[in-house]
Amino acid sequence: MSKDPKYQELINLVREANLLASCGSLLGWDERTYLPSKGSEFRGEQVGLIARLSHQMNTNPRVGELLANVEGRLMPAVDLPEQANIREIRRSYDRATKLPARLVEEMAKITTQAQGAWSQARQENDYPAFKPWLDKILVLKREETQAIGFKNHPYDALLDEYEPGCSSTEIREIFAGLVKELTPLLKRIQGASAKPRTEILHRSFPIEAQKEFGRKTAAKIGFDFEAGRLDTTTHPFCSGIGPGDCRITTRYNANFFNESFFGTLHEAGHGIYEQNLPAADFGTPLGSYCSLGIHESQSRLWENQIGRSRPFWEHFYPQAKELFSSLSDVPLEDFFFAINEVKPSLIRVEADEVTYNLHIALRFELEMDLLKGDLSTADLPETWNQKFQSYFGIQPPDSKTGCLQDIHWSMGGIGYFPTYTLGNLYAAQFMVQARKVMPLLDREISQGEFGSLKQWLVTHVHSHGRRYTPDVLCRKITGQALTHKPFLEYLNEKFSHLYRLM
Amino acid sequence: MSKDPKYQELINLVREANLLASCGSLLGWDERTYLPSKGSEFRGEQVGLIARLSHQMNTNPRVGELLANVEGRLMPAVDLPEQANIREIRRSYDRATKLPARLVEEMAKITTQAQGAWSQARQENDYPAFKPWLDKILVLKREETQAIGFKNHPYDALLDEYEPGCSSTEIREIFAGLVKELTPLLKRIQGASAKPRTEILHRSFPIEAQKEFGRKTAAKIGFDFEAGRLDTTTHPFCSGIGPGDCRITTRYNANFFNESFFGTLHEAGHGIYEQNLPAADFGTPLGSYCSLGIHESQSRLWENQIGRSRPFWEHFYPQAKELFSSLSDVPLEDFFFAINEVKPSLIRVEADEVTYNLHIALRFELEMDLLKGDLSTADLPETWNQKFQSYFGIQPPDSKTGCLQDIHWSMGGIGYFPTYTLGNLYAAQFMVQARKVMPLLDREISQGEFGSLKQWLVTHVHSHGRRYTPDVLCRKITGQALTHKPFLEYLNEKFSHLYRLM
Repeated sequence: MSKDPKYQELINLVREANLLASCGSLLGWDERTYLPSKGSEFRGEQVGLIARLSHQMNTNPRVGELLANVEGRLMPAVDLPEQANIREIRRSYDRATKLPARLVEEMAKITTQAQGAWSQARQENDYPAFKPWLDKILVLKREETQAIGFKNHPYDALLDEYEPGCSSTEIREIFAGLVKELTPLLKRIQGASAKPRTEILHRSFPIEAQKEFGRKTAAKIGFDFEAGRLDTTTHPFCSGIGPGDCRITTRYNANFFNESFFGTLHEAGHGIYEQNLPAADFGTPLGSYCSLGIHESQSRLWENQIGRSRPFWEHFYPQAKELFSSLSDVPLEDFFFAINEVKPSLIRVEADEVTYNLHIALRFELEMDLLKGDLSTADLPETWNQKFQSYFGIQPPDSKTGCLQDIHWSMGGIGYFPTYTLGNLYAAQFMVQARKVMPLLDREISQGEFGSLKQWLVTHVHSHGRRYTPDVLCRKITGQALTHKPFLEYLNEKFSHLYRLM
Repeated sequence: MSKDPKYQELINLVREANLLASCGSLLGWDERTYLPSKGSEFRGEQVGLIARLSHQMNTNPRVGELLANVEGRLMPAVDLPEQANIREIRRSYDRATKLPARLVEEMAKITTQAQGAWSQARQENDYPAFKPWLDKILVLKREETQAIGFKNHPYDALLDEYEPGCSSTEIREIFAGLVKELTPLLKRIQGASAKPRTEILHRSFPIEAQKEFGRKTAAKIGFDFEAGRLDTTTHPFCSGIGPGDCRITTRYNANFFNESFFGTLHEAGHGIYEQNLPAADFGTPLGSYCSLGIHESQSRLWENQIGRSRPFWEHFYPQAKELFSSLSDVPLEDFFFAINEVKPSLIRVEADEVTYNLHIALRFELEMDLLKGDLSTADLPETWNQKFQSYFGIQPPDSKTGCLQDIHWSMGGIGYFPTYTLGNLYAAQFMVQARKVMPLLDREISQGEFGSLKQWLVTHVHSHGRRYTPDVLCRKITGQALTHKPFLEYLNEKFSHLYRLM
């Protein structure tokens, strides 16, 4: 099939559009790391041009002609990797061409302005200043759901962009199961007499030592520094530019251990995925990540399942003690308990493994209702607070720490939040399977050997690119569809032990 | 004129091509500063795509139609800035469309390979390994001169790309005048009994202190760090990405003061020019530098005319002594003499102000003859050495320090070298004028005040962009055409004093 001239022409067109888009990725990385302040307006023009040109390439009618041609001839064949390319190119082409150019431009314009408005509104704790922007965005997103089409809930049309094949019905069920068990677990933890000594994480951690430790750890778990970089930024991210070039970022806090360290592990997890996508397939679906949920599974797996595990720290804690004299009097047990503290808190990005998904459940419910019009933006702050009270037993004192805390809605990213929870669930389900086939894994990890886990992920997740939908991939790896059970079992076991819940 | 719809359409097309090319500039900067090693092959693909797309935009037949339209209607009007845009867009459009696509591609391919071959040949001191590549490049460059057209010498067709309106006859005359006076000046200096203590420049200069000093000095003379950056690289350069974003680079040698310091001043000079081009005209000739010779005048002016002057060091030397304890016992006089040492040497980039232009004269003569076929590549090393002997009284022991030292020919940059000398001459001629209108300039400089000189350059050079050809610009600023006299007077006065030639 790969020698079919029409198929090749199609691949060349799509690859070129993505090659151009990858130049935009570098511009974006630079914008958030090294761009001089006076250059930001001009950078906006550069990024806008690249986005416009690659959109033109992606919606080139020739792509449509070639797709129709190869689908008619090649799709009935046996299951070949190239068919996944055709399936996924069709998917993106349809999404891209269904949206009117006017809507795309309007969305780009409004979300750029809305991000500025959000940033200021959050700073000034002024939800009413952001509300009109959220209204505009909701109007545009509803129009988008109409253009894309959906069966049950308009939310499905948005979710599908981030998590192909996933529906709001599934997400609703997943959260129902999660919330039902997380809430009592949280109560038990809050009632436990064992408490971690968290002040030890707020001692002095010199930034240069943090840099060395983060870099060393990221390299150890498999992030390749000859094919990537680690730089400093305000809002950490991972950007896979292309083969041999993946960039992760972090931020440092000289008086808090967790911020940079777990952030680096998280981004390194994303980075290892990007670095091990098949390079020869760059620019086509086969060379791209499967879904945002699967991407997030790789970051959460290294950050939490591994990075917050006991075997991991058996290996790394002696090194940490050498680098940070503030830990010299702290036993491993205390440190390990402290980095795993569970405590309801207002801010999602600071949440622990137990409460994190409650933050997501809340956002999912609210954005479903906002999109459908069942909740008005005028009522958002109050509804947010009520729900917060019921999930966490506390309430945000203001909208800065409430419904204004996240950038996502201002960017038009409605439907994005659930992928964070999906990532947590996939990671747990994958790890159950990994431990099944590698019974000595925890011992390896406690000896600082991460090679077999990494290789297992490369083989079963990374190397497939977008060949399978996330659902099919999950079944192939674990033998069953995604469920919340392995994640809850993981939490129950880990935190029962830590908090001595008997 | 700027409201003419056809003129506006033309400007929009040209601006968009240059906006895209500016994305390529950032990719190029990143390639030479932060790109992970395994990313270089992919980077080549990105850069190639951007170059191809912006070439397509630049040779868009619509540009030709619009040019013909506005030239017929708008050019007979009075002298307006927009006419310079039309004149220069015509110039680039003609150059771009005269070259067959096959030749452009062949040139890109061959020069990429030739740079690799050159780099290895230089390392292994193996001219015969590079010779076939130089032959190929000469064949292509001759084809280019035929396609572009020329009146007298094929060299003119190449020179004109870098220095619009300048001919090889003028360059030949300039070098004749220069060489005639530089050779005896050099002899007198070599015969002088006064000698600088150059070992003081080879003491210990900790890199962190060099970084601080270079950054501070660049900022002081007018490089805006909110609209630019200074990073580390192997081969220093300046890249003006666009309005508000100009990046300069340098390299550090912990045991040699000059390398990073004067390199930084040089690139900052280029950078100040880029930062003060009219931002509103970005992407059009009015927002672009005048010529490579004028660009080089700005770097040489700050590096040599100012940076190697006595008043400059009256201000900066006390700071240097504070930062570098190795200078604590060195009087200003000795330091000032040392940084101005004159001595024939093999390597162009390490040459002093007196011998530098002899290096260029030699290259100019050789590349004229190579291009016309009067000199065969087989005879190049010997002819190089003979000429070197006659100019400098010494001979390179090998081709690594002889005809293989520069990257230019392997890049196809024949006709580029003379712009370095033009830069030196423009800088001297401009400074004579600057001192005429600002009689207190040297006193200001000795007090660390660089604002009036910078502002004078902005007003008379930078703000015009490419409105005037270099010749016209020089006459406007200094009242006369470029001559080698002010430069020779500057050298004679400075070095007679330093070396006590009476």
